[in-house]
Amino acid sequence: MEGRTEEFLDLKDYVTSIVDYPKKGIIFRDITTIIQSPQAFCQACDQLVALLQKMKIDVIAAPEARGFIFAAPVAYRLGCGLVPVRKPGKLPRKVITESYDLEYGEDTLCMHEDAIFPGARVLILDDLLATGGTVEAVRKLVEKLHGKVVGYAFVMELSSECAGRKRLETEDIPVFSLIDF
Amino acid sequence: MEGRTEEFLDLKDYVTSIVDYPKKGIIFRDITTIIQSPQAFCQACDQLVALLQKMKIDVIAAPEARGFIFAAPVAYRLGCGLVPVRKPGKLPRKVITESYDLEYGEDTLCMHEDAIFPGARVLILDDLLATGGTVEAVRKLVEKLHGKVVGYAFVMELSSECAGRKRLETEDIPVFSLIDF
Repeated sequence: MEGRTEEFLDLKDYVTSIVDYPKKGIIFRDITTIIQSPQAFCQACDQLVALLQKMKIDVIAAPEARGFIFAAPVAYRLGCGLVPVRKPGKLPRKVITESYDLEYGEDTLCMHEDAIFPGARVLILDDLLATGGTVEAVRKLVEKLHGKVVGYAFVMELSSECAGRKRLETEDIPVFSLIDF
Repeated sequence: MEGRTEEFLDLKDYVTSIVDYPKKGIIFRDITTIIQSPQAFCQACDQLVALLQKMKIDVIAAPEARGFIFAAPVAYRLGCGLVPVRKPGKLPRKVITESYDLEYGEDTLCMHEDAIFPGARVLILDDLLATGGTVEAVRKLVEKLHGKVVGYAFVMELSSECAGRKRLETEDIPVFSLIDF
């Protein structure tokens, strides 16, 4: 893996903070500058793998589209399946749906109805934890299909602004993140 | 990598073909059944890595959202950067844009203006090659930033229905795919 170095990076240095985007008062944390860097991208994936590899995960469920960017290499490394969770009209087969509030607005997520086998140990992975609304909707979708959510993982969380972790974390369901703002 | 087996799968068996989706007369080739299978997903990524590993790729550019699913593990394995190419309004920083015709309609793609360094060797990777319109727009974006497109890679191509390969392939720019319909 040619891009690797032994140096351990502070991934926070690779996040670009954009003030007043997408609207006034919001600081948007942009991960595209992590993934443009081979070292930062590899390290972020490897750190997630290290946190998750003992959890016996069968399936990673990831909301579109940034979630896919980290969930795909982690699923590849862990040898588990990947389930895309998408906006309406994007998945071609029969879906189940769940509506939810997000940081600025409301939305609906869909999952193929055969995406999770009953009893599957499912990790939910996204780039960012803010309020937790998106991934809570993913959890409801997983549970409708009788999967068992065993954890949440994020590249970043915004613990100073939002209570996402408090909303999600239980004794049985840990929340992991690599960077905290 | 726990999901691996020694058995070599026919990835075509893992593609779901959906007749008359998204409209009458189109057979949609659904890759979600590849990625739900740890073995098929790992094999698809490994086959792409094997095809690409000698190409000295600096950056993989991938159109949203299905492109991310394969481009991310391949970039991770090759140790190169990943550039997301997105619909308007999705990238938070200053972008360049390119409009293009797709199989059914027209659309615009965006790339951050700092995404590609001048002279970078860029591979364009997507799940599916049909007409080639999407990835040709990506090539134009890369070239606007003075990157050098060194190849295209796809999980699937539809060579019996569409002339995508003919449109894209040159003496200097090879086109790779794993499955042909």
